[in-house]
Amino acid sequence: MTLPVRLRCVLCEQDRPATVDAHVCPEHEGLAGILDVVVDNPRRGTGDDPLDRYRSHLPLPATPRVLPTGYLTRTPLLPAPRLATLLGVGELLIKDESRNPTGSLKDRSSALAVELAVYGGYTDIACASTGNAASSLAGACAVAGLTARIFVPVGTPVGKLAQLAAFGAQVMLVRGSYDDAYYLCEDAARAFGWYDRNCAVNPYLMEGKKTCGLELADQLGDARADWVSVAVGDGCTVAAIGKGLAEGGHGDTRLLAVQPAGAAPIVDAWVRNSEEITAIEAHTVADSVSVGRPRNAVKALRTVRASGGAFRAVDDADIEAAARLLGRIAGFFAEPGAAAGIAAIQGARAEGLIGPHDRVVHVVTGSGLKTTARTATPFPEIEATLDAVRAVVDA
Amino acid sequence: MTLPVRLRCVLCEQDRPATVDAHVCPEHEGLAGILDVVVDNPRRGTGDDPLDRYRSHLPLPATPRVLPTGYLTRTPLLPAPRLATLLGVGELLIKDESRNPTGSLKDRSSALAVELAVYGGYTDIACASTGNAASSLAGACAVAGLTARIFVPVGTPVGKLAQLAAFGAQVMLVRGSYDDAYYLCEDAARAFGWYDRNCAVNPYLMEGKKTCGLELADQLGDARADWVSVAVGDGCTVAAIGKGLAEGGHGDTRLLAVQPAGAAPIVDAWVRNSEEITAIEAHTVADSVSVGRPRNAVKALRTVRASGGAFRAVDDADIEAAARLLGRIAGFFAEPGAAAGIAAIQGARAEGLIGPHDRVVHVVTGSGLKTTARTATPFPEIEATLDAVRAVVDA
Repeated sequence: MTLPVRLRCVLCEQDRPATVDAHVCPEHEGLAGILDVVVDNPRRGTGDDPLDRYRSHLPLPATPRVLPTGYLTRTPLLPAPRLATLLGVGELLIKDESRNPTGSLKDRSSALAVELAVYGGYTDIACASTGNAASSLAGACAVAGLTARIFVPVGTPVGKLAQLAAFGAQVMLVRGSYDDAYYLCEDAARAFGWYDRNCAVNPYLMEGKKTCGLELADQLGDARADWVSVAVGDGCTVAAIGKGLAEGGHGDTRLLAVQPAGAAPIVDAWVRNSEEITAIEAHTVADSVSVGRPRNAVKALRTVRASGGAFRAVDDADIEAAARLLGRIAGFFAEPGAAAGIAAIQGARAEGLIGPHDRVVHVVTGSGLKTTARTATPFPEIEATLDAVRAVVDA
Repeated sequence: MTLPVRLRCVLCEQDRPATVDAHVCPEHEGLAGILDVVVDNPRRGTGDDPLDRYRSHLPLPATPRVLPTGYLTRTPLLPAPRLATLLGVGELLIKDESRNPTGSLKDRSSALAVELAVYGGYTDIACASTGNAASSLAGACAVAGLTARIFVPVGTPVGKLAQLAAFGAQVMLVRGSYDDAYYLCEDAARAFGWYDRNCAVNPYLMEGKKTCGLELADQLGDARADWVSVAVGDGCTVAAIGKGLAEGGHGDTRLLAVQPAGAAPIVDAWVRNSEEITAIEAHTVADSVSVGRPRNAVKALRTVRASGGAFRAVDDADIEAAARLLGRIAGFFAEPGAAAGIAAIQGARAEGLIGPHDRVVHVVTGSGLKTTARTATPFPEIEATLDAVRAVVDA
């Protein structure tokens, strides 16, 4: 069962057959031979569901869809003029991926995983995740009647676990890091015959995220963005958005790729001007991009370089301040990772990389509602009297 | 400053001037003289933003919009065939209001509140809420640069409070019930000159929610629904959805109005075939509809009766079971109140009120992500070995 796309190895540049369960290129050791999907002559469709609208850009079979049209929708691109002023940029637009069905950009690739798994005859899909990929897979599996097998590290936020419980996924809390969960999931998928939803090893999944970039290009049209900022964990998302922008004719939009300072191995390679990653132990409040051993660093580095963009690291304190700005000044409730790009825009503006008249897009990749357990809400308790209200108002 | 609509008192049926801060009809005591907005010759617009598409149905001034187009979007109407089979109905469609910007249907009226407050020259908006109206108001105020003054009862879920904190609202946790918070908020709005976003006393706010019914009518088109089920607290939402369906030409769709058994004063009046409400002390897991002294019961009762529909009460245990079904069989993570309608559909099907071939729409009014703190997530912790995975899979 092959798909109507080509698969090309990023190392040896050979084409490989586009079978449903194609993984990395067999010519190289381990995960090195990442396969890239190439589409020939895509033509834009219509409607708001990205799997329909961008069908000819995607590795989708010609069979009927499993997920109903409208499960994914076009997410809004909204101006944030007060935050633009505060950051000192010409224009700031927020691509709000928290409007996806389970509240994150990952829904775009999970939807694709479900379509491909059913086409391949699978009943189970496996995924290792810092949280968002897991909950999005669990949601799409519940719609389609498939079993989601989820591997998350101990310490994943309760909001993401609650989603997994609500969607009836089988979840294993792995004693270890995201990286430990990742390799265990890979092994288990092979051992038990589950479809593998891991973006790095599954060449098709990144194509789902690509629709975010395609949508952005459509929404911007002639009002092209100078910069798109987005947080980076494994590297798949930034590579996918860059690919989508390019396929949408906006390949010259510069990518500002952001990692938390405590989980910045790709930034480290960028600074060394290398494609060799030194794995680290990740520590950051931005759980959704807390990855010490990224699996798609090469694609991320090449995509950002090709765009004329840059990698930057930002401190946790700056990430938390950025999340507060996004909420209070712009009305977006972003999880910490989804706010990191705002901190990076501040830094890039200060160093002159981003100019005072630039049009900047920031992608809010996931909802802050998933990380509320760690939020302090120090509101005053009052008696039900007007005097008590007055005391608070006058304070 | 008047708006391009008429205001008619539901009791004396007199027209009142449509000023921005019109409240109840002065001819009657207390809140009795609820005012209803009447629009003359509305014409459907285009696009997906309900404030644009349904502008001529709404009490909006002719001034430029405050919130950007796309802040509100059309929410999806999605089939749930496996849940339909389980419930024994012909077709089940879910209107997913958790896709709104802050995760609930209340965003539709909060957006209207912000537009009207700015038109009226207000800088502050006040709201009493069980949670969703508050967080939606706080979000829209953050976009518009207004101050949200929020009154919630002690015990409001942490997810909703976290949203309020993120959006920088001024929040007062009132020692008392939602009803206590409600009356305090009304008094405070008057005393401090804040715009009043409370749906019952502000005749315009319900019109925001009405766009959910208008959208439903548009999305259904000729495939008309036999029933629309929705949970009821104050009564505004069901009245608004019914009004929207009627303005969309679907006034014969029957409304299944649902209250939790521990917060069912309107159901009680319905059973007595009366418009007199006996206030109770509300106790239910469905915090978003935990209202003991509903303020729009008359509109709700009349709308449901005019639709040929019915009121029903459902137990908390059935609500929690319905939420699990919605998550596991259909892939929607609903807060408990947003699942109550599924329990009511089960009951109405059992008593033969809903037929085996009926097309039923259920409105998921708010996201389960806001109530995750009370969710238990009893997943197994495992070592990162394949044997440990096998033990879980085989268990």
